Amino acid sequence: MSKSINVRTPSGDYEVLIGSKLLGSYNFKWLVQNRQILIIKDSMVPNEILETLRISLSNSQPMEIKVLEIETNEKTKSFEGLIPIFEVLNANKFNRDCLLIGLGGGITTDMVGFVAASYLRGVDLIQIPTTLLSQVDAAIGGKTGINFAGSKNNIGAFYQPKLVLMDIDCLKSLSKSDFTDGIAEIIKHSLIADKNLFTKLENIFSKNNELSDEDLVQIVYESSLIKAFIVSNDEKEKGDRALLNFGHTYGHAFEAIQSLEGFSHGQAVGLGMICASHLSFLLKKISSDEFEKIKNLIKSAGLPHEIPENFDVNDFIEAMSRDKKILDKKLRFITLRGLGSAEITEDPPEDLVLKSINL
Amino acid sequence: MSKSINVRTPSGDYEVLIGSKLLGSYNFKWLVQNRQILIIKDSMVPNEILETLRISLSNSQPMEIKVLEIETNEKTKSFEGLIPIFEVLNANKFNRDCLLIGLGGGITTDMVGFVAASYLRGVDLIQIPTTLLSQVDAAIGGKTGINFAGSKNNIGAFYQPKLVLMDIDCLKSLSKSDFTDGIAEIIKHSLIADKNLFTKLENIFSKNNELSDEDLVQIVYESSLIKAFIVSNDEKEKGDRALLNFGHTYGHAFEAIQSLEGFSHGQAVGLGMICASHLSFLLKKISSDEFEKIKNLIKSAGLPHEIPENFDVNDFIEAMSRDKKILDKKLRFITLRGLGSAEITEDPPEDLVLKSINL
Repeated sequence: MSKSINVRTPSGDYEVLIGSKLLGSYNFKWLVQNRQILIIKDSMVPNEILETLRISLSNSQPMEIKVLEIETNEKTKSFEGLIPIFEVLNANKFNRDCLLIGLGGGITTDMVGFVAASYLRGVDLIQIPTTLLSQVDAAIGGKTGINFAGSKNNIGAFYQPKLVLMDIDCLKSLSKSDFTDGIAEIIKHSLIADKNLFTKLENIFSKNNELSDEDLVQIVYESSLIKAFIVSNDEKEKGDRALLNFGHTYGHAFEAIQSLEGFSHGQAVGLGMICASHLSFLLKKISSDEFEKIKNLIKSAGLPHEIPENFDVNDFIEAMSRDKKILDKKLRFITLRGLGSAEITEDPPEDLVLKSINL
Repeated sequence: MSKSINVRTPSGDYEVLIGSKLLGSYNFKWLVQNRQILIIKDSMVPNEILETLRISLSNSQPMEIKVLEIETNEKTKSFEGLIPIFEVLNANKFNRDCLLIGLGGGITTDMVGFVAASYLRGVDLIQIPTTLLSQVDAAIGGKTGINFAGSKNNIGAFYQPKLVLMDIDCLKSLSKSDFTDGIAEIIKHSLIADKNLFTKLENIFSKNNELSDEDLVQIVYESSLIKAFIVSNDEKEKGDRALLNFGHTYGHAFEAIQSLEGFSHGQAVGLGMICASHLSFLLKKISSDEFEKIKNLIKSAGLPHEIPENFDVNDFIEAMSRDKKILDKKLRFITLRGLGSAEITEDPPEDLVLKSINL
């Protein structure tokens, strides 16, 4: 069972495959034969996944396979964290015809993507995102990079892989919180671009059961399709890609303030999407019925749907205005105009923004 | 007096302007207005050149102009050497709409090009090469990068600038040796692609006078035209760009061996071109008359035309075979098939290669 998306970008096309048991069954020969392969594996990824992949690759007649395990956190996502990867490539005389494989979450695919973009000015790359968040978010679109001097993702490249494999069996070992982080992005994609996916998610989460493999493949596929469509039309992030920030202006502020410490990215974005939907309602762009539907879906997906009691509104205002100062321009909110459609709203009235966090 | 080349590449077109008094007279407004500008200046570049540029930029209504001076050598051409540049950009909150200007020789333009490629995943760039070698070689073609772990240019990006300015007035402060390094590349371009330029160079250097400004603009222009034509057709270095390595297989070996220590890159390439031409003659691809013409031009340009007395042939053979081992494949020589035309010759008979250095 697998589904395929062909992502077209000005700098090259590539296939995204979504399915179960993909790593064990995919025929890598066309990409792997007679080549030097380096797998860069996130230490969080279970070894069985690596072994499954390694067997598949070995059956495809590579010249050699090396594996490098890396620790991934916001600190190793840095020049220092890249050095060991470049060292392995250089020490083993990997040439321009080599192939890198990123096996891990979003930090791994971001780092490996940047290494692939810059080693010998660009070598081939397969991305194998192993978390739900990285599958539906980081692994499509070619944004790669690292953090520098306290800023996030401020050094990197737009660089497209040759293939992305999303094997939902990789998701079985995820924590509940890591899983819902991914669900938050899937909900986001439905809200900004696909009413049918929204309805599908409502049905799935109202059942209150574990997601079936079929459901999971389907929603990862449809979510990836939206991301692929948006980035295909805006590779270098000059237009519609901004819509992918729905819920994130709030979300970043929520993540930055102390009273919400412990909120994961997905939780912050989940709550941020409710606020952004509320703002859309206050701006009369969606109905109260639509707003309720959105709140209910986010709640039934297990994401926070209420502002916590210890929330400090002054912290929030400060975080928002800091963002504003850093950007040195207007605050941009992505707002909905109905379910499945979004637009940019620049500098909405401040009182409405404040009101929007009163849920 | 200025000449213009439009370089077309799949990732964007840009103009290369060649002339005198360009920095003081160019109207930067279309690129500079309302933008944050960082000039990264090689410490070897005289301050008057910087000041001329700064005045022109200031007249074009920039938002702000910062200047960072860097030391350039094969050691600072590294991750460590990039850090101060990224720090200035980050500390001054330069955004995606900023503009970087590389002002210096090939190391500067290589480093600044890579920073421009990767800061915020790519910002705009003007290259102002200030040495003859960087004008006719490094500044066209979008190859950027740094050295890592003892290997040269093994990390970087293909990244095209928005504009390249070649002001021959920048060349007035060059040492004789730096100047002839550039002349060697111009001769190379004539040999592989332009018989008329070869004849022009013969005329210029037979006069035994200082080059006039007109002559200099003309040969920089024609040489750049050849480089631009080749890289336009082969942005990512998969085909004809290899012809630009004419003389370099020998040259790299000459640079690597102790008995020729002190040879500059241009001197090594000059001598390498004589050997490669000799090889072409031995392979019956050019006539003895053509070979003599080439030797005479290289000699009259002030480049070495004879193997020095202390040359150790065993060192040379070892350096060549080391290259061969590193490449893990056949040794590639670029050979001529007449004046102004070149081709790739893989693994020519070893005895001919040895004979070719007997001048």
